[in-house]
Amino acid sequence: MQLSTKHLLGIRDLVPNDIQIILDTAAQFKEVLQRPIKKVPSLRDVTIVNLFYENSTRTRISFELAEKRLSADTINFTASGSSVKKGETLLDTVNNILSMKVDLVVMRHSASGAPHFLAKHIPAAIVNAGDGINEHPTQALLDAFSIREKLGTLQGKKIALLGDIMHSRVALSNIYLLKKMGAEVMVAGPPTLIPKYMQQAFDVHVEYDLKTALEWCDVANVLRIQLERQNQVLFSSLREYNLQYGVKRSLLDNLNKEIVIMHPGPINRGVELDSDVADSKQSIILQQVENGVAVRMAVLYLLAGGKTIQN
Amino acid sequence: MQLSTKHLLGIRDLVPNDIQIILDTAAQFKEVLQRPIKKVPSLRDVTIVNLFYENSTRTRISFELAEKRLSADTINFTASGSSVKKGETLLDTVNNILSMKVDLVVMRHSASGAPHFLAKHIPAAIVNAGDGINEHPTQALLDAFSIREKLGTLQGKKIALLGDIMHSRVALSNIYLLKKMGAEVMVAGPPTLIPKYMQQAFDVHVEYDLKTALEWCDVANVLRIQLERQNQVLFSSLREYNLQYGVKRSLLDNLNKEIVIMHPGPINRGVELDSDVADSKQSIILQQVENGVAVRMAVLYLLAGGKTIQN
Amino acid sequence: MQLSTKHLLGIRDLVPNDIQIILDTAAQFKEVLQRPIKKVPSLRDVTIVNLFYENSTRTRISFELAEKRLSADTINFTASGSSVKKGETLLDTVNNILSMKVDLVVMRHSASGAPHFLAKHIPAAIVNAGDGINEHPTQALLDAFSIREKLGTLQGKKIALLGDIMHSRVALSNIYLLKKMGAEVMVAGPPTLIPKYMQQAFDVHVEYDLKTALEWCDVANVLRIQLERQNQVLFSSLREYNLQYGVKRSLLDNLNKEIVIMHPGPINRGVELDSDVADSKQSIILQQVENGVAVRMAVLYLLAGGKTIQN
Repeated sequence: MQLSTKHLLGIRDLVPNDIQIILDTAAQFKEVLQRPIKKVPSLRDVTIVNLFYENSTRTRISFELAEKRLSADTINFTASGSSVKKGETLLDTVNNILSMKVDLVVMRHSASGAPHFLAKHIPAAIVNAGDGINEHPTQALLDAFSIREKLGTLQGKKIALLGDIMHSRVALSNIYLLKKMGAEVMVAGPPTLIPKYMQQAFDVHVEYDLKTALEWCDVANVLRIQLERQNQVLFSSLREYNLQYGVKRSLLDNLNKEIVIMHPGPINRGVELDSDVADSKQSIILQQVENGVAVRMAVLYLLAGGKTIQN
Repeated sequence: MQLSTKHLLGIRDLVPNDIQIILDTAAQFKEVLQRPIKKVPSLRDVTIVNLFYENSTRTRISFELAEKRLSADTINFTASGSSVKKGETLLDTVNNILSMKVDLVVMRHSASGAPHFLAKHIPAAIVNAGDGINEHPTQALLDAFSIREKLGTLQGKKIALLGDIMHSRVALSNIYLLKKMGAEVMVAGPPTLIPKYMQQAFDVHVEYDLKTALEWCDVANVLRIQLERQNQVLFSSLREYNLQYGVKRSLLDNLNKEIVIMHPGPINRGVELDSDVADSKQSIILQQVENGVAVRMAVLYLLAGGKTIQN
Repeated sequence: MQLSTKHLLGIRDLVPNDIQIILDTAAQFKEVLQRPIKKVPSLRDVTIVNLFYENSTRTRISFELAEKRLSADTINFTASGSSVKKGETLLDTVNNILSMKVDLVVMRHSASGAPHFLAKHIPAAIVNAGDGINEHPTQALLDAFSIREKLGTLQGKKIALLGDIMHSRVALSNIYLLKKMGAEVMVAGPPTLIPKYMQQAFDVHVEYDLKTALEWCDVANVLRIQLERQNQVLFSSLREYNLQYGVKRSLLDNLNKEIVIMHPGPINRGVELDSDVADSKQSIILQQVENGVAVRMAVLYLLAGGKTIQN
């Protein structure tokens, strides 16, 4: 079981077999996480630096937990309180960290392509934990894992990505992954938030009507309105967004089937998703979070060259 | 040895037997901390998240040390650099963290009642590390431990809480604990800083004259003037506060007994407490800090369901 | 193998034998760091607090890695998010931390002399990780280790410290160390950045012409222009500094020997050092970073009273 890549920079670079290996390995780690003793010695003596140049709660904690459960040594580094203020270049920072004999770097950065740039210049493995508006590969992998867990397969399933497609690295990584694994993908939302080139560039359905999208899909992955990434006010109010594009109980009750509801978090409750949907039995949002640790354990384990999961 | 409660939200919810169990368990851990090897494997494979939404040095370090000496895995999370800025609700944050299979949450929050709210909605155990102006239960437990260590018992002892009673969660937790354990309690300070309802509501003595308070008590627990929590300027200057309510060497020398001096820290030296008192033999301030680690080890150990302290 | 000092406050306080012991111990740890398993149990059950009152990436990570590879328990503390904002004195903070049975304190502080002040008042060992414009002893030790590794010895070697001597704690620690170990030292840079008393006070050569300095030396240790520490603008532009004092490929190619290039980082590329020099074979900048972990392991190990390096 060997990945075709040394880094996890994006889903775009993976072949379907890579995705299969990661998801299967994650399934093994998920079993480990159900045990009373959730720690395995797989990455003992491996040192991992978490380089977060952008705020994050859940992603950082999820990676750190994954690392600790693999018995790796972890070093946390956040941009504030760092040499960034001294004007050190990204490459110098990472080269320095690697000179200290660090084995893996997990990096989040606001600049799209930052981890790809690094990967060209440094010897250690890099895991992209989100780069600008480009990719967030471990999120797409945990989303895929959660769908496969719920529906048995990705092949032939209809997945709708709802909302702010334009600013979402989660959307882009999901599209790459789902298409590679044989799912059908729709992007739905207001025309202002869906780039015109999507349909041609990615072979996805584009839909501007929420009701039609929900009727079509098996799974609705509701994306966060990235208020902090938008430069223009696209709607007169968040309430108006909720009225037109918020996923509501009444909409779901009018469907002749029960679709699966997902969200990468953090949820803007009452904006893109109402609480009585987010907290309902249809929602697998908390399972996504739980699966995130297993998926990240799998990624780190495979990139560190792990052969067998030790027990 | 089982507590009557699943969480440690406040002293108000504890029965005297809970307090007894915690203090006795802390005494065992204090013995462990005197050994050359201060680490026990009691909480191996237990994961604890320290969620600090308010600044803290000593409390956070004290909890982290307690966790590491119990061999728990710890994850630190502070509000800055987090999804708080993305508007995620507290409940969503904690639910997400718990989905990652975290066993215990230690939380400090500026909103009174925040941990109580969470406890109603989440399955894991919560330790309140200070919530607004409500409670700071581990501080009261370590204060009680320190008094018991010094005087042999809490029963019948006279404890004066001095200073800013109105804004102090330390005062409130101390009052609950001391009354439950049979001590006599006095609150003393300027009338502007002692709520009028204290005497009736808590069955404590109220005193506005410092000298009278010191003559009465066996132990003076001098509280910090919470400059950062006060909205009005209550005294024309801190110097004036020191003149009227600062605990000074000369005052103590004029008593016909040696009382015990405590302070929860950080001390405003020269405001509520003079240095020649803080650093004197009467002071057990550094013992309080030392005992804090043992008390927090006991709380975490008991809430995690520990049965015997492994050596 | 015992140091003559309990703390590492500065190189000024060390005798040559101390430096010899630290460098020899670091050489042993460097061998450990070449192995697949880089962790030794030498400081198991030792607790170390990293107290950083000033920003730092590499120094903090380097110390933390050194601690983790010695199997110590580490607690990180940075000034922001701390009781510093509550006005607690430095002495109270550290006394409190020590009361929690911490064995070693690694401290960086913007005030020169802060660790020396502490050392007079507390029982635990202190490692100075940089204090104001005074000393940065572990940087000088890793610089010396790197020169010795490259040239075999320090004795009789000619080392030029280039650039901002006035504001540099790295320069001061290097001068003390190199003189104690029998090297010849030159300080070179613009007259505005070299204090007039240097020559007499430290028995070093002073040179204002970069070319002459490079012709003289075996090793050029190019210091960072400490933009953040300067109050006046000393040059009309950084470009002008680069023209007069930047170390460039063409300058090195005109020498009739190959000198060794060092830099303590972070580099201002294109200011004090050009990229084609920094990244050349003459440069041992990344080796310095690598050696930093071994040197810090040695310092922590020796101060914690280690006798033999366990394998």
